[in-house]
Amino acid sequence: MEEMNRTLAEIKPLDEEAMAEARKRQDDLTKPQGSLGQLESLSIQIAGIKRNPRPRIAHKVIFTLAADHGVTKEGVSAYPSEVTPQMVYNFLRGGAAINVLARHIGARVVIADVGVAAVLEKHPDLRDRKVTMGTQSMVKGPAMTKEQAIRSIEAGMELVEEELSKGIDILGTGDMGIGNTTASSAITAALAGTDVAAVTGRGTGVDDKGWERKVMVIKKALELNRPNPKDAIDVLSKVGGLEIGGITGVILAGARHRIPVVLDGFISGAAALIAASLSPQVKPYLIASHQSVEEGHRIILDHLGLKPLLNLGLRLGEGTGAALGISLAEASLKILDEMATFSEAGVSEKDE
Amino acid sequence: MEEMNRTLAEIKPLDEEAMAEARKRQDDLTKPQGSLGQLESLSIQIAGIKRNPRPRIAHKVIFTLAADHGVTKEGVSAYPSEVTPQMVYNFLRGGAAINVLARHIGARVVIADVGVAAVLEKHPDLRDRKVTMGTQSMVKGPAMTKEQAIRSIEAGMELVEEELSKGIDILGTGDMGIGNTTASSAITAALAGTDVAAVTGRGTGVDDKGWERKVMVIKKALELNRPNPKDAIDVLSKVGGLEIGGITGVILAGARHRIPVVLDGFISGAAALIAASLSPQVKPYLIASHQSVEEGHRIILDHLGLKPLLNLGLRLGEGTGAALGISLAEASLKILDEMATFSEAGVSEKDE
Repeated sequence: MEEMNRTLAEIKPLDEEAMAEARKRQDDLTKPQGSLGQLESLSIQIAGIKRNPRPRIAHKVIFTLAADHGVTKEGVSAYPSEVTPQMVYNFLRGGAAINVLARHIGARVVIADVGVAAVLEKHPDLRDRKVTMGTQSMVKGPAMTKEQAIRSIEAGMELVEEELSKGIDILGTGDMGIGNTTASSAITAALAGTDVAAVTGRGTGVDDKGWERKVMVIKKALELNRPNPKDAIDVLSKVGGLEIGGITGVILAGARHRIPVVLDGFISGAAALIAASLSPQVKPYLIASHQSVEEGHRIILDHLGLKPLLNLGLRLGEGTGAALGISLAEASLKILDEMATFSEAGVSEKDE
Repeated sequence: MEEMNRTLAEIKPLDEEAMAEARKRQDDLTKPQGSLGQLESLSIQIAGIKRNPRPRIAHKVIFTLAADHGVTKEGVSAYPSEVTPQMVYNFLRGGAAINVLARHIGARVVIADVGVAAVLEKHPDLRDRKVTMGTQSMVKGPAMTKEQAIRSIEAGMELVEEELSKGIDILGTGDMGIGNTTASSAITAALAGTDVAAVTGRGTGVDDKGWERKVMVIKKALELNRPNPKDAIDVLSKVGGLEIGGITGVILAGARHRIPVVLDGFISGAAALIAASLSPQVKPYLIASHQSVEEGHRIILDHLGLKPLLNLGLRLGEGTGAALGISLAEASLKILDEMATFSEAGVSEKDE
């Protein structure tokens, strides 16, 4: 709790001066003003985050957090819970989509167990931050205790703190947890105050019947637990997930250390809702990598005021969208830093 | 003409067998089927293009073609014509946006003069394919002769042929030419049969008055020249541009050599309309990198049946969107090739 509160207190606004300098430089570069659209605004945002009008990034890190969900017992997912630990091993062997995309963009991947419902074999690349062996089913009572919810957030924060010495110039968030779209839909319905059906999608691929069951399960969980929308920890503990809490912690610690936070899709979005509810100051540190296929994700992005960089019909998680977003963020900073200005290049400016 | 016709005759359909194998592999990889959306379909398309179920790309090449437009005399652009040669020198010194993004993705850039209205200094990296010193104003008569139009297309084809020995596994198209959104709007109106105002945007940034003048100029040019929408060479010669013809040639030669063709924005789109009109077989070789801010681009993409990968509000040209698209294409192929399958990773498949 102390660690969490300290982090929340240390999230500061962006540096307006660095942003103004970056904006001026973008306008001086050899291209019509504004012609690189979101790449320009992204570079200016990162200048403000990093207090540097021409920042560069070398160390890119994706945090992929895994945990299990008691609610899978209610038949809300197309895959069995065993897939969570199996995929953790797949991450550790480098065979998953996030490994491929992290290599493509030159990023490290930090794999952490925040609450997988299995005893995982030790591995030098696996961070053991297990809070408990998965959550309880949210239709029987709260998914976890408040203490567990706070511990999951602090686990995420610690992962970032630990990596700082190796360098983190930008970070991406990622998740693995069978059943976690159910938890994310419940969080979104509670915090954004929307209808359950409007924020519930097909996850890894349930059919019509499965979708109806999922909606019913979430409604039942919200009615039973009555999470308080003004208290994000209450929402996280009652209908959330341990990896979602962990990602919340990664986001908050990123903002505290003035690191741009590139969000993956729906699960990371639910974690960002919690983070922004705990500290609205976190919002300017967020970059939405992509628009997920999951229905609730658009509502989250609207709620956070974020415009996604990509819309490729992704719905995998793991940090895959974040990886692609990080590459675009890096491209935007290279544009800002490496391009010639009109005067340097001897190019005529616009006719006035 | 002979070179062009030979190329048109040698564009063949995609390899269905390679595509079926790639699709099967995508479905066996450790992720829910379809969860990587457009990255999956993109990898399957490229497998079909390259007749290889697990293709890799090493050599990436962006062709950035420059030329001038007589129509700039009518006040349709926010920048003066001198900017075309100035930007060519900027490309050659590596200070433009396309240089930065090509370095970011590890691509070569081939810079060619297809019709700049200035005598350019010789440079080892500048391909001199000048057809003539820019086009004539399309409001006074045809922009160029049919022979010049065909020579511009063949110039683009030759650029691709010349690069083959150095290796081209994927190519991107790019343009530089003050006034070329005017030509592209005219081409789009003629070939897609749409209203001029609906396909005319603000180019590098004309104001309301400039936009009205631009629409009027294009209408006048179409009324005067009456390009035949069934004859793409007629359209190109009457209201087109030399770099647009050149890009048409790059696209056709790419398809002939089974190279995936990643299109940049509006100007490249106009060239693709001409290419697809000359040979509808070219369409499956095309990949739309992004959705431009230019109004006419959406109409072009709909006409060609293409779904853009990115929508970042870009309107620069040069091949900048194509560069980002090439990186996504490469990512999609790494996913296809490098990810573990369910059986390799020992991951449980979907509950049925």
